[in-house]
Amino acid sequence: MAKIAVMGYGVVGSGTVEVFYKNKASLERKTGQELDIKYILDLKEFPESPYADKFTKDFNDILNDDEVSVVAEVIGGINPAYTFVKQLLQKGKSVVSSNKELVAKKGAELLAIAKEKNVNFFFEASVGGGIPIIQPLHQSLAANEINEIVGILNGTTNYILTKMIREGDSFESALKTAQKLGYAERDPSADVDGHDTCRKICILASLAFGRHIYPDNIHTEGIRNVTLEDVEYAESFGGAIKLIGWAKQIDNGNVQILTCPALVSDESQLYSVNDVFNAILVRGDSTGDVVFYGKGAGKLPTASAVVSDIVDAIKNKGKSKSLHWDDSEQDFVDSYENIELASYIRFSSQDILKAKSDVKNLFGEVQYLSKKHQNDSEIAFITPVMKEYEIQKLCNELESSGTIVSRIRVLID
Amino acid sequence: MAKIAVMGYGVVGSGTVEVFYKNKASLERKTGQELDIKYILDLKEFPESPYADKFTKDFNDILNDDEVSVVAEVIGGINPAYTFVKQLLQKGKSVVSSNKELVAKKGAELLAIAKEKNVNFFFEASVGGGIPIIQPLHQSLAANEINEIVGILNGTTNYILTKMIREGDSFESALKTAQKLGYAERDPSADVDGHDTCRKICILASLAFGRHIYPDNIHTEGIRNVTLEDVEYAESFGGAIKLIGWAKQIDNGNVQILTCPALVSDESQLYSVNDVFNAILVRGDSTGDVVFYGKGAGKLPTASAVVSDIVDAIKNKGKSKSLHWDDSEQDFVDSYENIELASYIRFSSQDILKAKSDVKNLFGEVQYLSKKHQNDSEIAFITPVMKEYEIQKLCNELESSGTIVSRIRVLID
Repeated sequence: MAKIAVMGYGVVGSGTVEVFYKNKASLERKTGQELDIKYILDLKEFPESPYADKFTKDFNDILNDDEVSVVAEVIGGINPAYTFVKQLLQKGKSVVSSNKELVAKKGAELLAIAKEKNVNFFFEASVGGGIPIIQPLHQSLAANEINEIVGILNGTTNYILTKMIREGDSFESALKTAQKLGYAERDPSADVDGHDTCRKICILASLAFGRHIYPDNIHTEGIRNVTLEDVEYAESFGGAIKLIGWAKQIDNGNVQILTCPALVSDESQLYSVNDVFNAILVRGDSTGDVVFYGKGAGKLPTASAVVSDIVDAIKNKGKSKSLHWDDSEQDFVDSYENIELASYIRFSSQDILKAKSDVKNLFGEVQYLSKKHQNDSEIAFITPVMKEYEIQKLCNELESSGTIVSRIRVLID
Repeated sequence: MAKIAVMGYGVVGSGTVEVFYKNKASLERKTGQELDIKYILDLKEFPESPYADKFTKDFNDILNDDEVSVVAEVIGGINPAYTFVKQLLQKGKSVVSSNKELVAKKGAELLAIAKEKNVNFFFEASVGGGIPIIQPLHQSLAANEINEIVGILNGTTNYILTKMIREGDSFESALKTAQKLGYAERDPSADVDGHDTCRKICILASLAFGRHIYPDNIHTEGIRNVTLEDVEYAESFGGAIKLIGWAKQIDNGNVQILTCPALVSDESQLYSVNDVFNAILVRGDSTGDVVFYGKGAGKLPTASAVVSDIVDAIKNKGKSKSLHWDDSEQDFVDSYENIELASYIRFSSQDILKAKSDVKNLFGEVQYLSKKHQNDSEIAFITPVMKEYEIQKLCNELESSGTIVSRIRVLID
C-alpha cells in the first residue's frame, strides 16, 4: 500500500487527481500494490469535491505523516514550493513536480538532497507536458553523447506564431486570440518574453550535459518583436519562425545556450510543429536526430506525466535513481558572444544600392530574400554562420548606411 | 564491476562493442561501477580486431561464466537466438536484444522466465532503432490508457516510397536504388512485403495492450503493388502513401491490428517522415497524440539502444522491472474483417458515367481525386469509413462494371 499527497489543486493538481482515480486499477497493477491519495493540499476550500475529505490547508499534515511516501508538487513558483519540497525530501519522501521554475532554479540542490536521502525527485511534467522527454533523455539515450538540443517548448508562443503564419494576424491580434481561448495568460510575459522556454531548455541541458545551468544569465529573447513582414520573408526562404530553446556542448565540454525566435527551415522536423504543440529535437552522436512531439501543456497531458512519475517513484521506493546533475561553476555556460549561428537581417535604407554593396563588403556572399509588396527601401538577407560578437560588430557597421529593422537567428540544419 | 557478453558480431554487434567502448567512461559513471565486455560470440574469426581476445565460438563459455550478468543478443532470427536467450534467462542473467523476430514470436515466454528468475529482458533496439519507444511507452506513458498506435516502422520501404513520391521512380527502380545503397537486402521480402513492420507493430501493441499479439495471423500487406499513379492521386488528396503498422484497442478490450500501405494526410505528423526515418504515433487518453521520430535503423543508432538497455539492466540488477505482457488467447485479436477505415479506390471502367453512378449507389457520397494525365477510363475516390467486410462486399459489387486497380487504406486523422 502506498499513500500519496498532491500539493496544489489548480489545473494540473485537479488533473492529477482525476487521472489517478481514472486509472487507479491499472496503476495498482503496474506498481503491484494498492494506491491511494491521502491528502490534497490547497488553501482554497472545495466542499463540493468528491475528494473533500482529503483536503488540508496544513503542509505539516503531509510532512509528518509517515504513511505518505510520495508527494506531487503542482503548486508552481518558487515559494512555498521550494521550502515544501526540500523538507519533504529531507524527511525521506519522494517528490514529483511539474514546476519548471523550481527545477530550473533549484534542481541541483534538490537532486542532491534526494540522492543523499535515497529517495527520488522526478519532474517529467516540467518540460513538454505529456511528452516523455526527461526519462528518455536520461535513460534510453544513456549510450549517447548528446551534442545539441533544440526545442519548441512553449505552446502559447507557438500558437501565436502559427496564427501569424497561417492567418496573417499581427502579434498583438494573435496574442489577444490566444488570451481569449485561455492559451495565454492576462500577463503573458512569462510566455511571450521567453522565460518559460528558457527555464525548460535549462532543465533539458542540465540533464543532457550533467551540470546545472541556471536560467538567470541565459540570453533570452521573446517574440514581441516578430512582425508579419518577418514571417513573410521566412516563408520566401522556405521556413517558419519559431520560438526555440537551444543548447549545444562545445569542444571543451562547456555549453552554449540561448532562447530566441529562430527561422527554421522546412527540411527540419520542427518546421511542421504548429499550434500549441511542442517538439524537442535531441542530437546524439550515435542516434543522430531523435524528435519527441506532442501536446506541451494542458490539464490532462501534464497530469498524466505527473502520475507516471508517481508510479515510477513508487516502483523505485528505497532506491534513488540516477536521474541527477551536479551543481556547476559560473563558467560552465560559454559566453553568449561566442555562439555561432546564421542570422536573417531585415535592413532599411534610403540607398539600397549602397546598402547591398555594404552588405557584400561586410558579410560576403549572402542569400537575399524577397516578399510580395516588398518596401523599396528594404532588403532582407541570410548571413553566413558566424559568431555572435562578429555579427554584432558587422551589424553596427552596417547601420552607418541605414537601420536594422529585425535580426532573427537561422537554424540551418 | 559488471561483465557483459555480446552474442553476434554483425552490423549491430560490432556497433554495440564500438558504442560501448567509446562511451565506457560515461557508462561507468551512469551505472556507478566498472564495466567491461568479457565475451563476443561469433562463428567467424576476427584476428585483426582489437577485441580479438574476447571472441569465442562456444556459447557455453558465456552461459557458464557466473561473472557475466548481462548479455546482448544481436544475432537475429529465431534459431539459435531463442535457445540461447532462454538458457541465459534461466541461468539468472539479464538479456537485452535487438531481435524483433524473437521478441514478436517469443516475447511472452521470455518475459515470463525473466520475471520468474528476477532478471530483465529488454528490447529497446527491436523497434525504431535508436528512437526511444519501448521504455517511454512502458514507463512515461504509464498513466495513460493507450488507444491507438500508428507507426512508420521500416526504413527501407519508407525510403522506397519517398523516392517514388519525390522523384517519380517506379517501385522496381526505387527498390534497385535502395539495394545499391545497402538500404534493402538482396532478398527484400521481409521489408517490402511488410513482415518487418508487422513484427514491430506486434511488439508495440503487446506492450501497450498488455497481452502478446503474435505476428503469424495478422493481415499484412506490403508495398509491391503501390504504383506511381497511386502516389500521384495521393498527392492530389494532399497526402502521401506510407507503409504503416496500426493497432487499436476496441471497446471490449480486444485489439485490431494491421500492416498495410496507407494514405496519410498532410495534417498528420507522419506525413513528413521521409527517407529511412521512422516515426511512431501513440494516442493516449490523457496525453493525446505523442510522436517519436528518428533513424529507425543503422549500425550506431541501433547499437546505442542496445547499450542503453545494457546500462538499464546493470542498474536494475536483482530487480525485475515491470516491462511485461501476458500470453494471450487466440481471440484477443479482433477479426480483420471488423477493422473500420476509409479506403482510396482506383477503378477502371469502359463506362465512367455508369461507374460513377454505381459508386454513388454503393458507397454514397465519396471524394473524387484527380491527377495530371488521368486515364479517361479511370476514376479514383475516397470511401467513407466502413468495416472491412462491408467494403469488400461493395468492391465485389462494383467490379460488375469494371476493375478495381488499387485499394489503399486512408488514415483520416
